[in-house]
Amino acid sequence: MAAPSYYGGGVTGASSALLTDKYELTMLAAALRDGTAHRRTTFEVFARRLPEGRRYGVVAGTARFLDALAQFVFDDDTLAAVSEFLDRETLAFLADYRFTGDVDGYAEGELYFPGSPVLSVHGTFAECVVLETLALSIFNHDTAIASAAARMVSAAGDRPLIEMGSRRTHEHAAVAAARAAYLAGFAGSSNLEAQRRHGVPALGTSAHAFTLLHTTADGPDERAAFRAQVDALGVGTTLLVDTYDITAGVAAAVEVAGPELGAVRIDSGDLGVLARQVRAQLDRLGATKTQIVVSGDLDEFAIASLRAEPVDSYGVGTSLVTGSGAPTAGMVYKLAEVDGIPVEKRSSHKQSHGGRKQALRLAKPTGTIVEEVVHPYGRPPELPEGVQARSLTVPLVCGGEPVVSFDFDAARRHVADGLTSLPWDGLALSRGEPAVPTRLIPPGVGGRHVRHL
Amino acid sequence: MAAPSYYGGGVTGASSALLTDKYELTMLAAALRDGTAHRRTTFEVFARRLPEGRRYGVVAGTARFLDALAQFVFDDDTLAAVSEFLDRETLAFLADYRFTGDVDGYAEGELYFPGSPVLSVHGTFAECVVLETLALSIFNHDTAIASAAARMVSAAGDRPLIEMGSRRTHEHAAVAAARAAYLAGFAGSSNLEAQRRHGVPALGTSAHAFTLLHTTADGPDERAAFRAQVDALGVGTTLLVDTYDITAGVAAAVEVAGPELGAVRIDSGDLGVLARQVRAQLDRLGATKTQIVVSGDLDEFAIASLRAEPVDSYGVGTSLVTGSGAPTAGMVYKLAEVDGIPVEKRSSHKQSHGGRKQALRLAKPTGTIVEEVVHPYGRPPELPEGVQARSLTVPLVCGGEPVVSFDFDAARRHVADGLTSLPWDGLALSRGEPAVPTRLIPPGVGGRHVRHL
Repeated sequence: MAAPSYYGGGVTGASSALLTDKYELTMLAAALRDGTAHRRTTFEVFARRLPEGRRYGVVAGTARFLDALAQFVFDDDTLAAVSEFLDRETLAFLADYRFTGDVDGYAEGELYFPGSPVLSVHGTFAECVVLETLALSIFNHDTAIASAAARMVSAAGDRPLIEMGSRRTHEHAAVAAARAAYLAGFAGSSNLEAQRRHGVPALGTSAHAFTLLHTTADGPDERAAFRAQVDALGVGTTLLVDTYDITAGVAAAVEVAGPELGAVRIDSGDLGVLARQVRAQLDRLGATKTQIVVSGDLDEFAIASLRAEPVDSYGVGTSLVTGSGAPTAGMVYKLAEVDGIPVEKRSSHKQSHGGRKQALRLAKPTGTIVEEVVHPYGRPPELPEGVQARSLTVPLVCGGEPVVSFDFDAARRHVADGLTSLPWDGLALSRGEPAVPTRLIPPGVGGRHVRHL
Repeated sequence: MAAPSYYGGGVTGASSALLTDKYELTMLAAALRDGTAHRRTTFEVFARRLPEGRRYGVVAGTARFLDALAQFVFDDDTLAAVSEFLDRETLAFLADYRFTGDVDGYAEGELYFPGSPVLSVHGTFAECVVLETLALSIFNHDTAIASAAARMVSAAGDRPLIEMGSRRTHEHAAVAAARAAYLAGFAGSSNLEAQRRHGVPALGTSAHAFTLLHTTADGPDERAAFRAQVDALGVGTTLLVDTYDITAGVAAAVEVAGPELGAVRIDSGDLGVLARQVRAQLDRLGATKTQIVVSGDLDEFAIASLRAEPVDSYGVGTSLVTGSGAPTAGMVYKLAEVDGIPVEKRSSHKQSHGGRKQALRLAKPTGTIVEEVVHPYGRPPELPEGVQARSLTVPLVCGGEPVVSFDFDAARRHVADGLTSLPWDGLALSRGEPAVPTRLIPPGVGGRHVRHL
């Protein structure tokens, strides 16, 4: 057993195997005992619906999942932790565990809609069932953040967004959130571990604490704080001007840094009104190139409402890391096929749709997408003339080995291209239906027979 | 530099030092340069308000923060990652960094209200400023979860709650969420890493996938699935009965396991109606002691609405790990004092209140709490007769060394005692004001002069 550690990062070794629900291992034990563990299965990750009113989602987490999959091994320490409730055969299976199956799914950064088969995991029941929680944790978190971030990016237009929400979420979720935001088009993040681990550009300004620190028995000294920051970081830095009085703060900032000051940040108040006032003041002072960064409880709606204001960039925190009202993507990991037989849950309204699947996205010749088609694996439907179809399902793992490598720049371009491909109302921030319908072709139906539903 | 790792757990070593915003280190650099870095400071963690309509919050994360603090060291790898943007003096400071100051604050599991000084960090600016993001990430996440969990616990009364939301949040946030839920009174969690790392009891049932796995060319075979589970886990197990038809599922479960079957789980549909039907059916079958576990999009309101139904325990997922509408506690880390001088931000409405503080909680002789009093450090107010006062501020770290050890059982009792101490309307789930008012005694005011505000 590992020494107790209350800090999330203190994982012994790098095994991801216990980031798992207990029932996966007890189901494994039961299936090993009755022989069903070795049946060939397909599990599918998908969302039954988008968060309420959302028109699209952005798949994120794929590369993190592939990395976690490689680290899903039961070392001695991990085995000791589960030996209390598992029999010898199950422990022996886990000791030898390496995922040897296949995974395919949507590329990271792809848009998705309700029912999109975002990930398919193929292998024995035993090797697939144990991955449920890990796969869902990664996709549900990262996708929720990327989906919210993409709305902010489209609301911000050409103005850069800085992710600064680490402090409002779990310390490791913060790292993944910074990555997901960057994937979706943010310019960078305040988070240093996201820079080290994922190459997300680290950005930052300064805090009110730094200005307050320059208080003496004679009172506050905002100029001293600005001078210290400019001395250390150069005139290109961003000075936080709203600790005391904003007008006085802007005057002091330009006085200390000169008109070449990089930027000022406003973190409170009516940001639109203040941005106009500060812009006018900066221009009067000759600091016409000094930029204005705004932050403070911004979400996609607040960002959009500032479109007409002289704002140069946005800092976004809480709403980004909490998915702007949808902190989880609500994806599920469902058994879809056993030994080639489609299976699905039938009680109540929680229907899943059996069978291994692939997906196509149909578009007009202009590139505007019109429909998502989810069809039985290997049996694409015939398509009407004049419709472009792009296969969304790409191989990710073959025989246990990853067959893709993650290219952050390409994935970022893929998100941007996806947003461009939406129909005109797909980017609306208001509540609405998914931007395109999803057509599901059931497993029993041959592709040629389903042209229009 | 570490090898790139897309998986959150693959931190090289256990340093927590980069779970930090870049601006903390650039502020440090600027403060080292102008000499203010060595001023004595107090930083305070508090929430300006509770999540909308909440009547109390539950402090969580303290022990995790103390653990992370001990691991806040800049090893070679960490230093290499920040060397691009920091000067030599700052890098030298970080290489030697160990927190040597004092920390005090609320015990883990303590209730809190708006303005409660949940944590105070005392030391040089340099050693305190770098802890902002790490402290807030841990407190904001864990407190959000514990606060939501406590409402579910009080709604559930004596019936146990099982945390099963790992799949709906970041894979490491899941571990901390399980811990926070257990702190607040949940019976346990599905998460295995939470058991290993924190001793949270691991619980579990089975998934629809296990039933679906037992499908053959002849069709579904729910009995085979139940038989396999009972063979492996004994008749005390919990069988999931809603994969196909619930009535048939219950009949099959009792047929296979006998009337000694531990429990059945219902995961979909109208849980109240189904629980009554299933209870009656179990009783008719002689399985009068077989319990009923319900799950499926439960939150505190749904739990409360099932009070009159024959439910024995609840499985709670999404709403728990997302804080039931409040995924972050919104705490801030503010500089309150510099070299003994109280400081505070003055622009706009975002006022903080300067000076190092302590807090008392006042109660009637019956134990029912009536007021939170936040007063200047070392200067408690005089109290009216007949009022009981309990000091809420306890030492946590002295001279860099932790002076408390975390006792999970005691912390769980502390939460339970706190809930019992609330005034009669404090436990209401409906939206309302904080259960007790907070009185803030400003730093300039002597304790004796402030009896009633």
